[in-house]
Amino acid sequence: MNTINEPLADGMTRHWRVDEVLVDTKTDFQHLVIARTAQGVSLFCDNDRQSTEFSQLTYHEALMVPALLLADQVERVLVIGSSEGVVCQMAVQHGASVVDHIDIDEQAVKLCAEHLPYGYTLDELAEAEKGTGPIRVQYIDGFEYIRTTSEKYDIVLVDLPDEREEEAQHNRLYGADFLRMCKALLRPGGVVVNQSGCQTMWRNTTLIRSWQRFNEVFDTVAYYGSDEHEWAYLFGRADVVEDPTALMVERLKTAGYQPESIDDLALVGNSIPPYRVRQSLA
Amino acid sequence: MNTINEPLADGMTRHWRVDEVLVDTKTDFQHLVIARTAQGVSLFCDNDRQSTEFSQLTYHEALMVPALLLADQVERVLVIGSSEGVVCQMAVQHGASVVDHIDIDEQAVKLCAEHLPYGYTLDELAEAEKGTGPIRVQYIDGFEYIRTTSEKYDIVLVDLPDEREEEAQHNRLYGADFLRMCKALLRPGGVVVNQSGCQTMWRNTTLIRSWQRFNEVFDTVAYYGSDEHEWAYLFGRADVVEDPTALMVERLKTAGYQPESIDDLALVGNSIPPYRVRQSLA
Repeated sequence: MNTINEPLADGMTRHWRVDEVLVDTKTDFQHLVIARTAQGVSLFCDNDRQSTEFSQLTYHEALMVPALLLADQVERVLVIGSSEGVVCQMAVQHGASVVDHIDIDEQAVKLCAEHLPYGYTLDELAEAEKGTGPIRVQYIDGFEYIRTTSEKYDIVLVDLPDEREEEAQHNRLYGADFLRMCKALLRPGGVVVNQSGCQTMWRNTTLIRSWQRFNEVFDTVAYYGSDEHEWAYLFGRADVVEDPTALMVERLKTAGYQPESIDDLALVGNSIPPYRVRQSLA
Repeated sequence: MNTINEPLADGMTRHWRVDEVLVDTKTDFQHLVIARTAQGVSLFCDNDRQSTEFSQLTYHEALMVPALLLADQVERVLVIGSSEGVVCQMAVQHGASVVDHIDIDEQAVKLCAEHLPYGYTLDELAEAEKGTGPIRVQYIDGFEYIRTTSEKYDIVLVDLPDEREEEAQHNRLYGADFLRMCKALLRPGGVVVNQSGCQTMWRNTTLIRSWQRFNEVFDTVAYYGSDEHEWAYLFGRADVVEDPTALMVERLKTAGYQPESIDDLALVGNSIPPYRVRQSLA
């Protein structure tokens, strides 16, 4: 394999030069490749770049930090998807005492722990599989877990491959009904967060759809679009928070997890949704 | 030609499906392609996407609108590069009475007028070449024009292909000395603006370099990064403006040119430079 061709938008693909293939396998759920690229060790699922050594922290902080700051407390966290577990480790660093990490793809999680230089090591994953520490990994369907659990959480985080226009097993985890199920698991002051697509105008369809759904389901919706990573995230609370950005900025100063790629100005600038996204509610 | 392969960053290219080639020629200065893609009629110079029918307005408004709002008056405008002239037309719509448009590549400007459904029509270009109306086109070297002219301007806009890491004739128009020459042409309250690269972390080298130069040369530097177009622009004034964003927001309400893709919230959010760009001055 010399290149990975990633679909970006109609008539447009992004090609990654592959310098070395570390893993190329078909799991029960996806085609998984871990390879060295110009961005270091990189993970691709079904040809979509999931994360790279160079940029993963920017991605994960944009996903997790606003949630850590927007939740009134962060004791109990649920993570659906996410494979390599960086956000689980951030939650623990922030002070969470329970992080339930549910992933449908056991092979993917194990391969990530083995090959990616971020997230769980193999030892940490073995601990998390035993469930004796704060992080507890289970290999089950996130949809079924959320539908049936009696646990409650301060953060419910869904980090999956991008929603597809076409049929895909993980599309079930993107609907308004699914968001309502996530919301039902929140403790007071809790937050539902997901990876919601890209803000760029030639590939913003799923972001706009996600924005509409969050606004349908939650009384407070916060947005964070990473200007350095072309990816956007949505955060919902069941109750009304007058100024979520001001709240996040205030809490950043004393946060247990101190980000490397986000400061107060980044929170202010990147929490304003793009014009076309805002207009989509009109 | 079935695809155009655009370099994005080390080890990464973006491939455009070409549905129909309208022009494929080597001018005296560049390899120019005008083709139909999924984004409509699109212009590529040396394989770099310059503009597309679908996204050009978002690009041009992000480049021009902050300059129109930041300048204390907009009577006399100088545009270097820019080929198809959309920003010249915006300046006239905003109220400018003189727009000097200097482009080194006569063939490119004529081909754009003939084939692109935005910017000058052939008739408008013929008028602008005569120089009898507000827009006056001259096919000369922008560097030499700026070095030698005795004219003064409210806006000096430089819109060129992206600065190259390697040797390229247009790199002359990206240095701090060139910015100082542009600054010397400003009338009081005037603005120098240029297209300054991409904010995404795997291709932000030229943006960071441009940010450092603008801060070296100007007492006020404003930033606008288009969250919908992955492209960033810098604006410099010779004098001190305490809060450029507040000034732009205030002036937007009554601006002669009313943008379709920028509102007050977009100005607030997108005028905060990315974290890594800000940190580059430390």
